[in-house]
Amino acid sequence: MLNKASVIIPPMKVSELGEFGLINLIRGSIARYENSGQASWQKVLVGIGDDAAAWQSDDHIHLATTDTLVQDIHFDLDVIHWEELGWKALAVNLSDIAAMGGIPKYALLSLALPGELEVEDISKFVDAMVHLARKFGVAVIGGNVATAPNVVITVTVIGCSNDEAILKRSTASSGEQIAVTGYLGLSAAGLEMLKRKPISDREASNILRRAHFQPIPKIREGQILAEQGVKTAIDISDGLVADLDHICESSKVNARIRVEQVPVHPVVTANFLNHQELALCGGEDYELLFTADEATVARVKQALNSPVTIIGDITEEKLPTRVTVIDSMGNIIPYKRGGWEHFKNGVTEIKFAEP
Amino acid sequence: MLNKASVIIPPMKVSELGEFGLINLIRGSIARYENSGQASWQKVLVGIGDDAAAWQSDDHIHLATTDTLVQDIHFDLDVIHWEELGWKALAVNLSDIAAMGGIPKYALLSLALPGELEVEDISKFVDAMVHLARKFGVAVIGGNVATAPNVVITVTVIGCSNDEAILKRSTASSGEQIAVTGYLGLSAAGLEMLKRKPISDREASNILRRAHFQPIPKIREGQILAEQGVKTAIDISDGLVADLDHICESSKVNARIRVEQVPVHPVVTANFLNHQELALCGGEDYELLFTADEATVARVKQALNSPVTIIGDITEEKLPTRVTVIDSMGNIIPYKRGGWEHFKNGVTEIKFAEP
Repeated sequence: MLNKASVIIPPMKVSELGEFGLINLIRGSIARYENSGQASWQKVLVGIGDDAAAWQSDDHIHLATTDTLVQDIHFDLDVIHWEELGWKALAVNLSDIAAMGGIPKYALLSLALPGELEVEDISKFVDAMVHLARKFGVAVIGGNVATAPNVVITVTVIGCSNDEAILKRSTASSGEQIAVTGYLGLSAAGLEMLKRKPISDREASNILRRAHFQPIPKIREGQILAEQGVKTAIDISDGLVADLDHICESSKVNARIRVEQVPVHPVVTANFLNHQELALCGGEDYELLFTADEATVARVKQALNSPVTIIGDITEEKLPTRVTVIDSMGNIIPYKRGGWEHFKNGVTEIKFAEP
Repeated sequence: MLNKASVIIPPMKVSELGEFGLINLIRGSIARYENSGQASWQKVLVGIGDDAAAWQSDDHIHLATTDTLVQDIHFDLDVIHWEELGWKALAVNLSDIAAMGGIPKYALLSLALPGELEVEDISKFVDAMVHLARKFGVAVIGGNVATAPNVVITVTVIGCSNDEAILKRSTASSGEQIAVTGYLGLSAAGLEMLKRKPISDREASNILRRAHFQPIPKIREGQILAEQGVKTAIDISDGLVADLDHICESSKVNARIRVEQVPVHPVVTANFLNHQELALCGGEDYELLFTADEATVARVKQALNSPVTIIGDITEEKLPTRVTVIDSMGNIIPYKRGGWEHFKNGVTEIKFAEP
């Protein structure tokens, strides 16, 4: 355990420290109190570093997660509609509960905004959030509102585990298959379309926009994974490679992805030359990425209505990087670490890393 | 129940709509789903509009609250120290749990900040927050970090009720006494000192600064109130008059404050000519304001180590305003509604109002 007096911090900016340094700093500060024997700490099953925090009560595992969206960092009000923003602000949190195999129950909304905004827009925002909440049986029960120079939305979702099984990042083991629900690349392709590559096909354009702004959290899928015996999962928010790396780091394992097996969405393949990169590194697909033995993955495939694709394996082999992408000939494919080394590379969001 | 089609919103800015309009808009949007019979909703005991939300599980009442602090709106980094900011961001949420008579258990931290900040400052911030958390047996179990142009801190605290009794805003009734814990005015006086009135006395200056930046949430006091049979309480964040008005609005009653009975802190009386105004309207004292019958208030006085002062009564009499302040001769004392009609008057924070 770190001793408080032993922590010496040289003069440094957060941007120089980067993601992992900042995470370690926060975790270190908390770790100095973690083993204090207090009752709350004793019941913590998953602390900082997974998709959601988890703690045990007499009869349930409880889950909680929070995420903030900042104007001009996470969204551009010239592009996103208020309905889409209301949907997305809740959806990304529901997805964190899905990644734990949990059931979302309650949501709190903290809304900081400039007074010159149109009331009608805020109304659309709240309506859309409540609409999505209802789809998943979630009650919006509290929050607060404050003036701010720019829009900052923080949503907290509280849930529970159905049958005492939760999905974590830290439980992957060698020999397991790596699998993913649904198709990848749509959300990143949607962003690319909005930023610099208009798509004339109306239907394709709608699918791309919706994937980026109104992702569907995979709540039922996460519960089925847990029911079928899967132990390890994460939702794809940072990108397939980055999120698989989070699992590998937490579980202290290596992973190999077979690039030709990665299920790229056909709309992405048809419209984007860089479809492979979008699927590997794009992020915000909010599909579930999980690892399990062959029999468990087979059961999940049977149980789920949506596609499940095996894309690689967890291995003890010494690989050049924690996550290695290979082609059908076994050649290593280099990939960009996009969406991942935050602050340092100007990318914006950090989930506290697994201890 | 409102019908969605019936809601017509004329073109209007949030600042024109003001606090109550915005609250009604958000509550209206949520109310359209509230009676949908979904399981989560059925268990809600207190939704939007109290200090914290509350819901029932098989064996517990659970509580959750969230609050956001925005740079240059809620705090000025040229004045507040990072340690103080870390303390205060958690303390205001713990105070909301105290106002429900609850026990805080878990906290989530969402931190949006510019990359050019000093790492050492963030370290001080987190250390102070975790230090306060430990004082009250709270585990900081999750959160997220994101880049932002200015600092925005959202803390969520989850807790429970010890013995199925919670304190609400909506249960005050005619004939009850109005009482308050501790002394009032210190925090607002501290702000005034920092902004425009330096105090040369070092000890007084320290007390004022600490009251404003490092308030002590009245957790134990809240629990004792609930144990002794109090039903109605709020924490003083907006100001004595404003927060009493929240109780009156929720409970549909009127209140009378006897100004000479209001316990102004001696440091405030000694250093500020406007001490009465600071105690009545200043806010951020984070003391508990409650109503109960005479016998219950007497029991609370016995049970609490800290002072409890009776300052007025809930009445059926027709009074000029929902909250009326009178002097010892029975004359009505006009007061400013400072800290209260948000957005419209440029004041910054709203707790969703009680339905």
